[in-house]
Amino acid sequence: MNTARTDLPAFLARCREVAGDAHVLTDAADMAPFLTDWRGRFTGKAAAVLRPSTVEQVAQLVRACAQWRVALVPQGGKTGLVLGGVPDASGDAVVLSLARLNRVRAIDAVNHTMTVDAGCILQQVQEAAAEQARLFPLSLAAEGSCTIGGNLSTNAGGTAVLRYGNTRELCLGLEVVTAQGEIWDGLRGLRKDNTGYDLRDLFIGAEGTLGVITGAVLKLYPQPKASITALAALDSPAQALQLLTLMQERCGASLTAFELMSRFCLNLVGKHFPQLPKPFTQPHAQYVLLELTSSESEQHAVGLLEDAIGAALDAGIIEDAAVASSVAQSTGLWQLREHIPLAQAADGKNIKHDISLPVSRIADFITATSPQLEAAFPGCQLVCFGHLGDGNLHFNVAPPVGISNEDFLANQDKVNRVVHDSVMQFAGSISAEHGIGALKRDELAHYKSPVELNMMRAIKAALDPLGIMNPGKIL
Amino acid sequence: MNTARTDLPAFLARCREVAGDAHVLTDAADMAPFLTDWRGRFTGKAAAVLRPSTVEQVAQLVRACAQWRVALVPQGGKTGLVLGGVPDASGDAVVLSLARLNRVRAIDAVNHTMTVDAGCILQQVQEAAAEQARLFPLSLAAEGSCTIGGNLSTNAGGTAVLRYGNTRELCLGLEVVTAQGEIWDGLRGLRKDNTGYDLRDLFIGAEGTLGVITGAVLKLYPQPKASITALAALDSPAQALQLLTLMQERCGASLTAFELMSRFCLNLVGKHFPQLPKPFTQPHAQYVLLELTSSESEQHAVGLLEDAIGAALDAGIIEDAAVASSVAQSTGLWQLREHIPLAQAADGKNIKHDISLPVSRIADFITATSPQLEAAFPGCQLVCFGHLGDGNLHFNVAPPVGISNEDFLANQDKVNRVVHDSVMQFAGSISAEHGIGALKRDELAHYKSPVELNMMRAIKAALDPLGIMNPGKIL
Repeated sequence: MNTARTDLPAFLARCREVAGDAHVLTDAADMAPFLTDWRGRFTGKAAAVLRPSTVEQVAQLVRACAQWRVALVPQGGKTGLVLGGVPDASGDAVVLSLARLNRVRAIDAVNHTMTVDAGCILQQVQEAAAEQARLFPLSLAAEGSCTIGGNLSTNAGGTAVLRYGNTRELCLGLEVVTAQGEIWDGLRGLRKDNTGYDLRDLFIGAEGTLGVITGAVLKLYPQPKASITALAALDSPAQALQLLTLMQERCGASLTAFELMSRFCLNLVGKHFPQLPKPFTQPHAQYVLLELTSSESEQHAVGLLEDAIGAALDAGIIEDAAVASSVAQSTGLWQLREHIPLAQAADGKNIKHDISLPVSRIADFITATSPQLEAAFPGCQLVCFGHLGDGNLHFNVAPPVGISNEDFLANQDKVNRVVHDSVMQFAGSISAEHGIGALKRDELAHYKSPVELNMMRAIKAALDPLGIMNPGKIL
Repeated sequence: MNTARTDLPAFLARCREVAGDAHVLTDAADMAPFLTDWRGRFTGKAAAVLRPSTVEQVAQLVRACAQWRVALVPQGGKTGLVLGGVPDASGDAVVLSLARLNRVRAIDAVNHTMTVDAGCILQQVQEAAAEQARLFPLSLAAEGSCTIGGNLSTNAGGTAVLRYGNTRELCLGLEVVTAQGEIWDGLRGLRKDNTGYDLRDLFIGAEGTLGVITGAVLKLYPQPKASITALAALDSPAQALQLLTLMQERCGASLTAFELMSRFCLNLVGKHFPQLPKPFTQPHAQYVLLELTSSESEQHAVGLLEDAIGAALDAGIIEDAAVASSVAQSTGLWQLREHIPLAQAADGKNIKHDISLPVSRIADFITATSPQLEAAFPGCQLVCFGHLGDGNLHFNVAPPVGISNEDFLANQDKVNRVVHDSVMQFAGSISAEHGIGALKRDELAHYKSPVELNMMRAIKAALDPLGIMNPGKIL
């Protein structure tokens, strides 16, 4: 990379010509906010930060990168968790921030679509849809900061995947600047289009390594009329799976969330956020937060939920349940779930895993993996919670009582190996919703088959022969 | 292609070694059933028909094709409509039939997945799911003959797309034999997996030009408890769109089908199939067949439908409606829709278009395009029907009264140009659910942007550098 390093001044002059002096940052202080990752674990270096405001500017800047052989790192809201959107330590690359491409271009309520710039904040997209009585269902903790371009590039998941799918399923069309600096207008708002290879899904989840997503056509849904939340108390993950099957069979598409939390997780939340609700007087081994949404009425949602909870109690699947009877109560139950990561952070460091499994194998995975961890790291504490309905667990491992964070984190590679080896034995994935970035690149190389890696490398070489698009990420 | 033509005997000997003498057909009579397309419009030639029975045999046969530079045409149930699964007239290629790979490998009811061989007949897949109280929603006219591998390779649509998506959305994982004859095991049953490029969706819809799909993990759903059908009579496509919006807002995911049919279509059906029901005494300009499905109860479905129909009548959107009060009546209404293609065939030939548009623009498209056709071909008759909820119209043009089929079909290219030019003006697609194959290859080259075509060609060259995978299809 950067074979023409001595030409950096010429390259930067061209960038200034394209984007304007004010939007080509080279001063260290100006660049600093663009170089450190969300969790503050890594700070990279960059030759410059480029801040184009139009798709045409993006294309011209990519052409300059190609001409001068400068690597570029596309960047959205910088909320990624795997170091996909920050540059490495070499200082050779430029950061290409999409933040100034932030227009909602159009909303078509009858077609249930919305066309947006990649730099739109997710919350801005949600709000623009709501103004037209439509729902853009993607929802995740970082929605106030993350951009839709980043969501697309990482195929973000979140809390509504059970009903509406990942970001991939919420996108009908893309606009992409290719590695050659050409603009591909794939902004189609079509439910059916079988005219050649599915380039859209190739760029989605590619983490900026094949091209720069600059715009998208998103799928919208009618705004639901009501939603209702409940917390169920159970004895084991196996019973949580029984509850999931029961709810899916009775409620179909009305079941919009199904989140598992262990007793240890809720104890952590109770310790650090004592003001949050405590729905049960007795402790239980596991809890499921579930949400039903109705396109008809609140009465419909309530009736459906009460019948299903009643059936689960009768069948002995759940031990107790608390149904929210107001929006405030509903919010309170969701806060229990959403405060788990915050409670973890308040409690110290831990080793995180964002894994997925076939839904049917989750209980067996937990049963098999927990003793392996205990045997290898006696006294370690499991913070296990996640989107059970999607087979996605956040399977985090905290230090034993009395062991320092630093001492325990020194075991990170060994802990990863135990967890990920077990994931592979249960036919799962080592990255469910966070992606690969730079952080999990070695893990990917370790676990993916050579056949699959070779196909990925062939595609990368075909679309980005100069290797300028976010090098060092994924592959 | 076929640079080593003189080595054909050696190639065939190797194929016989792999698949057994009985499954390497070279006799003209034996090969005949594999060479003519579904509509009987084209008969190709082949050097041989290969009928492997295992994935390993497929891999070995593809390696032989690579070694001897023989092109291969993967073939499923041969029900495609665009000449994607039959060889060309050169006689250089071999047909690789997947028909003997026809096992349902596994069903996981809790994970809502099913793992199947590519050669399974769609109906066999539906029935295997139903035995476990699960629904595999893909449904289309050829379901008794088409294979799931063909459905995946063409990203088939059908009548349940509005609720469940195209075949693409119904697949979680694939097994593929690459153009190098390697087996890629991507048979994942995961709802979330962000570990690198989305190869799955690249092979889906690639019509066998990038590799051979040999197996898949399919998504299942709980069996619905009830469904109910109605036929609504309306004045115009614009009112059909109003009805669609009303139904979507009131019924959400319970709306599972929404099919538009013009008066001319139902008149054709009445003429050729007089035994079918005639729900209305007065004729109407347009009809919508709609279906509601409930995961709860029949009572729920009936109540939802009656309320929505009542609201549409009150709002003046529809003129009349017939609600099926029995399974037999429901079947009768669906038969009206399903007999349109048969009635067309009985009435003579016509020029077919499988187009899609943004749903919101369908009425304007029909209004704009019909007079263009009338101006260019006075008296031509429009057979316009389709999956309105998906924006997918079958926009077929029949000869004027008194003009012979042959005389009119001579205008096929000109008719296509009028319709497809208009489709492009309305931001639509020239192939909604049938694919490109050999039939629409020139149309694709005419309408796709060079940027998009170049990316497709780069991917084709990267994954199939010898060009042996179904050459002449798509690109």
